[in-house]
Amino acid sequence: MADDLGYGDVGFNGNKEIITPNLDLMAKEGLKFTNFYAAAPLCTPTRASVLTGRSPFRQGIFAAHTGALRPAEKTIAEVLKKEKYQTGFLGKWHLGWLEPDKIESRGNYSPPWHHGYDETFATKSAVPTWNPTKTPKGWTSWGAQKDGSWGGSIYIENGKPATDNLEGDDSRIIMDRAIPFIKKSISKAKPFFATIWFHTPHEPVVAGPEYLAKYPNLPIGKQHYYGAITAMDEQIGRLKTFLKDNDVDENTIIFFCSDNGPADPLAKKGIASAGKYRGHKHQMWEGGLRVPALAWWPKHIKQGIVSDFMATTNDYFPTILDVLNISNNKKIPLDGVSLQPVLNGEVKTRETAFASGYQRLYKNTELYAYIQGQYKICIPDKGDKMMLFDLKNDPEEKNNLALEKPELLKKMVAELEDVKESWRLSREGNDYQW
Amino acid sequence: MADDLGYGDVGFNGNKEIITPNLDLMAKEGLKFTNFYAAAPLCTPTRASVLTGRSPFRQGIFAAHTGALRPAEKTIAEVLKKEKYQTGFLGKWHLGWLEPDKIESRGNYSPPWHHGYDETFATKSAVPTWNPTKTPKGWTSWGAQKDGSWGGSIYIENGKPATDNLEGDDSRIIMDRAIPFIKKSISKAKPFFATIWFHTPHEPVVAGPEYLAKYPNLPIGKQHYYGAITAMDEQIGRLKTFLKDNDVDENTIIFFCSDNGPADPLAKKGIASAGKYRGHKHQMWEGGLRVPALAWWPKHIKQGIVSDFMATTNDYFPTILDVLNISNNKKIPLDGVSLQPVLNGEVKTRETAFASGYQRLYKNTELYAYIQGQYKICIPDKGDKMMLFDLKNDPEEKNNLALEKPELLKKMVAELEDVKESWRLSREGNDYQW
Repeated sequence: MADDLGYGDVGFNGNKEIITPNLDLMAKEGLKFTNFYAAAPLCTPTRASVLTGRSPFRQGIFAAHTGALRPAEKTIAEVLKKEKYQTGFLGKWHLGWLEPDKIESRGNYSPPWHHGYDETFATKSAVPTWNPTKTPKGWTSWGAQKDGSWGGSIYIENGKPATDNLEGDDSRIIMDRAIPFIKKSISKAKPFFATIWFHTPHEPVVAGPEYLAKYPNLPIGKQHYYGAITAMDEQIGRLKTFLKDNDVDENTIIFFCSDNGPADPLAKKGIASAGKYRGHKHQMWEGGLRVPALAWWPKHIKQGIVSDFMATTNDYFPTILDVLNISNNKKIPLDGVSLQPVLNGEVKTRETAFASGYQRLYKNTELYAYIQGQYKICIPDKGDKMMLFDLKNDPEEKNNLALEKPELLKKMVAELEDVKESWRLSREGNDYQW
Repeated sequence: MADDLGYGDVGFNGNKEIITPNLDLMAKEGLKFTNFYAAAPLCTPTRASVLTGRSPFRQGIFAAHTGALRPAEKTIAEVLKKEKYQTGFLGKWHLGWLEPDKIESRGNYSPPWHHGYDETFATKSAVPTWNPTKTPKGWTSWGAQKDGSWGGSIYIENGKPATDNLEGDDSRIIMDRAIPFIKKSISKAKPFFATIWFHTPHEPVVAGPEYLAKYPNLPIGKQHYYGAITAMDEQIGRLKTFLKDNDVDENTIIFFCSDNGPADPLAKKGIASAGKYRGHKHQMWEGGLRVPALAWWPKHIKQGIVSDFMATTNDYFPTILDVLNISNNKKIPLDGVSLQPVLNGEVKTRETAFASGYQRLYKNTELYAYIQGQYKICIPDKGDKMMLFDLKNDPEEKNNLALEKPELLKKMVAELEDVKESWRLSREGNDYQW
């Protein structure tokens, strides 16, 4: 998973400037989603959904750094660990503190090793995408420190601060741990599950010299942004090559997506892009929620499928269970559906709805989106009222149909209210049996 | 604070069998509350209210071991630490884990040292009240272990497991740390704030031989229960003597209360008592909420006041701020009021209401109580409907007036709904400014 990668920030979604050959090829060799949603328009909540198959609102994770993944939530890593998989977490966690006594007001200590991961190389939250332990030039906020070191978040490797191999491109630094983790599993003849969550292209987004040099004619902002993404693309290609070289490619699924739309400041500057979609991170417009995504699984996923199926980050958990024939505990409400029949090319339309939200009450932010078939109702931005869009005929969300279709609006609002009540019950403890 | 001590489990509330001379004398020398409420009818929630002045429902703490004290909550220890007080926590914490990687599904790591305490001698939850590291005879659940050691909860002393002086009466073991903590503060000429939360008489409730021997004619169950309470009373007397001997008694307030009504199993066996009140722990009847309480402060609190003022565990935070003239951040909703004018004997009636709750959704438990003046509405027990009682004329809650006074019921239900909405906003992050 990339971090804050916009729908329009990859070649396979039509960006003509950016260099992402590996992702583009994987999209061609595998299945490309055109209608894939992050569970929320920002990081922590979406990450919670990826691991659990459940809306972050069920888990009390309303915003970034808020709450932390609860110990009672069942993650896909826990499930696979029970199935004797080797489980590794690599990259940006953002679902809790990694150091027990580094107190921050907005979360709790809740590291990956509490949630089913055997091995960990993780940061709590954002780091610079080049030289992740150093404050980038000109940077003055977040983890910036005057002495040049980065104080915002550090890499914790299996419980202890990492010290070696922390220079250069951050995606490479992560892949330098991911590949040995996978290699070890292969050498033990054990199945593996690796969760690789890049920091790229979240701010501070910085590219090293060789990646800047790939974009000589673009403004420096785009050079850094595109350069970091190209560096990440290279590492994804490296992973693919490694899997092939070790003859495990046909037995390994790679899922790729972003955690939300492009970052507000970079989208506003015209550096990051949601493609043709309106809005950005922190908003319920399509640009905040719709993200680039693909699934790659040689010989299993038919080459070159472009699927319009509405898929979401809630779907990974049930999909993996389905692919592996692991039965799900029916008592726990899941928001995802299995994508296996979609990967097979059998199913093209999602019957169930998708609901999303984002909340910061003290800032008067309480946003929702609810999509059923071609229609979407949403409070797209702070201060807005509920709107209705026909995504099939108006994917750019230009025509609010709220006044034209009051009955449909009413029906969908009522459905969303039911979902919200279900979320409330979950987050207030209804699903945790003790 | 005692743990699960019923309204009727002390001499000063009319129990003729039990031996609690120190508490009885303190009630006479100070102020005895006849109308004092725990914020909730069970432990973790009430503890959260004591430290914050806020209803536990604001904090997402619906039940025992649920949630944990959030890092963003402002505690009285944090406030006093800023005022240069030495702060010590001694006894049963129950507001989060004390060991970062001892994972339990129902909470989070959230130790006292994250909430303003300089020194700590604490257990996460219940321990036997005699020989707290050993499984009592015949005990087979909770922390019971076959080899005789107690595995349920261990004492953590300033971040590390305690090893010495863990034999005998648990209240003495706690006071053996509380007194040196206070002594050190006195020797440094610093003010101190000690939160002493006994385990007594929570199960496993066991008394040592000399305390059993004080009740030769009572059944063994009462011998243990009363014996442990008498041992605790002795330690409270020891504390009082220590304060006097060190000439700080006139400058020290002692507040004493219980965290909820008597434990269900012990109340049903007739061992523990809520006095004349109906019900017990886990219920919204008066017996679940109304607890023994006193305030003692020589030369400041007039001797022998028996106050009918409706006081609550929410009131400690604002009272201490008021006594010390520390201004409160008005933005954070508090549920308590300052008791200072009550301690002075000036005010006898509370104008504001008291609301309480208890929730375990997966067990279909969602209980509320709301008391305004002499009237109380409540869902007293699981499966019940809202009831209305006149506590002044019917303190035993025998006559449900719901059908007789529909207008009053309706009005009070609406007020409770407003409170619940305010709680919801708080627990979903409205009070945490980040």
